[in-house]
Amino acid sequence: MTEEERRAWAYLSRVAEPPNPRVAALAETLGPVDAAERIRRRALTDAPLLKATEARHEMDCAGNDLEILDRLGGRLIVEGDEEWPYLAFRSFAGVEKFSKPQAYAPLALWVVGPSSLSEVSERAAAIVGTRAATAYGEFATADLVAGLAERDVAIVSGGAYGIDGSAHRAALDCDGITVAVLACGLDVPYPSGHSALLHRVSRHGLLVSEYPPGMRPSRRQFLARNRLVAAVTCATVVVEAGVRSGAANTAAWARALGRNVCAVPGPITSASSVGCHVLIKNKAHLVTRAEEILELVGRAGELATDPPRPRSDLDDLTPDELAVYEALPGRGSRSIDEIAVVAGWPVADVLGPLTMLDIKGLVTQDNGEWKLLRHRATGSP
Amino acid sequence: MTEEERRAWAYLSRVAEPPNPRVAALAETLGPVDAAERIRRRALTDAPLLKATEARHEMDCAGNDLEILDRLGGRLIVEGDEEWPYLAFRSFAGVEKFSKPQAYAPLALWVVGPSSLSEVSERAAAIVGTRAATAYGEFATADLVAGLAERDVAIVSGGAYGIDGSAHRAALDCDGITVAVLACGLDVPYPSGHSALLHRVSRHGLLVSEYPPGMRPSRRQFLARNRLVAAVTCATVVVEAGVRSGAANTAAWARALGRNVCAVPGPITSASSVGCHVLIKNKAHLVTRAEEILELVGRAGELATDPPRPRSDLDDLTPDELAVYEALPGRGSRSIDEIAVVAGWPVADVLGPLTMLDIKGLVTQDNGEWKLLRHRATGSP
Repeated sequence: MTEEERRAWAYLSRVAEPPNPRVAALAETLGPVDAAERIRRRALTDAPLLKATEARHEMDCAGNDLEILDRLGGRLIVEGDEEWPYLAFRSFAGVEKFSKPQAYAPLALWVVGPSSLSEVSERAAAIVGTRAATAYGEFATADLVAGLAERDVAIVSGGAYGIDGSAHRAALDCDGITVAVLACGLDVPYPSGHSALLHRVSRHGLLVSEYPPGMRPSRRQFLARNRLVAAVTCATVVVEAGVRSGAANTAAWARALGRNVCAVPGPITSASSVGCHVLIKNKAHLVTRAEEILELVGRAGELATDPPRPRSDLDDLTPDELAVYEALPGRGSRSIDEIAVVAGWPVADVLGPLTMLDIKGLVTQDNGEWKLLRHRATGSP
Repeated sequence: MTEEERRAWAYLSRVAEPPNPRVAALAETLGPVDAAERIRRRALTDAPLLKATEARHEMDCAGNDLEILDRLGGRLIVEGDEEWPYLAFRSFAGVEKFSKPQAYAPLALWVVGPSSLSEVSERAAAIVGTRAATAYGEFATADLVAGLAERDVAIVSGGAYGIDGSAHRAALDCDGITVAVLACGLDVPYPSGHSALLHRVSRHGLLVSEYPPGMRPSRRQFLARNRLVAAVTCATVVVEAGVRSGAANTAAWARALGRNVCAVPGPITSASSVGCHVLIKNKAHLVTRAEEILELVGRAGELATDPPRPRSDLDDLTPDELAVYEALPGRGSRSIDEIAVVAGWPVADVLGPLTMLDIKGLVTQDNGEWKLLRHRATGSP
């Protein structure tokens, strides 16, 4: 990218509210420099494009913006760059624009950090949730993130308070890669309480924004940001979400983009789990362990193992052996005739299973009476 | 039912391990008195039936059993009795016997309590779960049961420690109807710590057993009991269950019988919710409120309302109004030109939404500058 092109992209990234498919089309047709020049000179025939760029076409702070970016040690990336997650963004082509009018790839991304966006997006999970996180939600986030990070899954989130912050923090805490996609300029410390956290993310992972420096966040920018969080990951995991939540919006983007939607269940008594339960009812994957998320974001064959199951000596008994075993008293002993009556079987049928139980070391014979060899754990199976 | 028939049913109910379809078929063909007589005299041509009744055919404690039943104030019910839940038990006909060899209606039921089994089973939910219930599980049980009981849904469970006990207790606590289906005789205080609770159930609801008095519970009886819990209800709700749990068995019966299977989510950190999460992954209904269960067990049209959603003044704004609203600063004011630049819109397009916001009382004009009328709640939507 020449310096002239870089300035043109910076100008285009601010001149219309992103994502704007008309600006993107013009830049693709004419190249960024000509496209920027035409917009600046109002040399356009496309009325909606004229309108979309009217308010800001005279603002040219591209030089300034790039200076700030350089000071941050960041870079401006566009389609064609090695770091551009081309495959991830191609999914926008398949989304019905009527239901998702913002469903376009970004024009350019302002990024800072040592990771490559295209590389991380190949093995990444979005971990998102409510700002009103509970201690449970924060613990669950840390637990899932640790499990994913140790399997080299990048953790993408929105840098917000609550679950987002816990996700970034947990990833950093175990030397994982984490990506914060912002709804404001890279230099805007939002939320202010996370300025140190976001700085750490920019040093060890990646800060990403569709907005030029100085841009403050707004509602529509949060919504546009959520689409990028979903787009650069293979699965969106909602850890906690109230009945109204931005996390549900990210999940909706993930679904629209053909990504996996996951939600973590929680207590039905917690307002911060209501949104997760609604998602699960609406066919989100219920996930409880990092392995289950890995199965969705990892390579084919990275399958979750079954959770450990407690084992009992009685598991390997045949139904007949179990019935005879159960016909023996917890304490004391019984004759074969008595066992037959309790089991409700002919005496002849009791002998075989009883012999097997003897071989397996579960029963013993004493003066023609049989008894259990270990204390019996009665109870509902 | 004559006294002779009653004694015959009592005999038949003990002579083979229930459910035994051959005993049932014989009783249907010959009537209970003849069937009992043939079995007692071994006047049978059916070899499996001979075998199934061999061990106990000489035990005739029917008189004794009925005396105990009378002392308890109970009754022995069979198909044809008004109280027999004929429709509920008919579902067994549709179950593949290969996968569920016990899938038969009971031959007779020993019951005690003021409720009618057929009546309660028309509007009943099974609330079951682990004996290792947590405080969360007990609270969730009490909350769901209270909501169901106040809508006249009978609560059916297994009388066990943990969730079962909480369910019965919660139903009694709000004067609801509760039914305990036992895996032992009605006179057997099992589990012993629930003898007072089961007594209360027998006074205000119903105790039900397929087993004659004196029968101690066993593993296979618990499994057979679970099928009845599922059968006499429209939905089985598992509140808490470990990775191995009898509740999962009841849920499997519910599914096999075409009943609704529900599970309550819980913290992913709780071993007592693992089974519930597995059930939900396997297509059980995730339920969080009594209303959602009512939708499954109630009459057509008893639909759950949506959970309450917090409302905001901004909910009713059009996207254009919201964009203009958001282009105003949190503090201070902006000219129309400035608003246009921030919103990224032509000035002409800003005026309409701004006027609407003024009418709605959200913004005000002061010396040609506009400002918000109430403090703006910025934040991720």
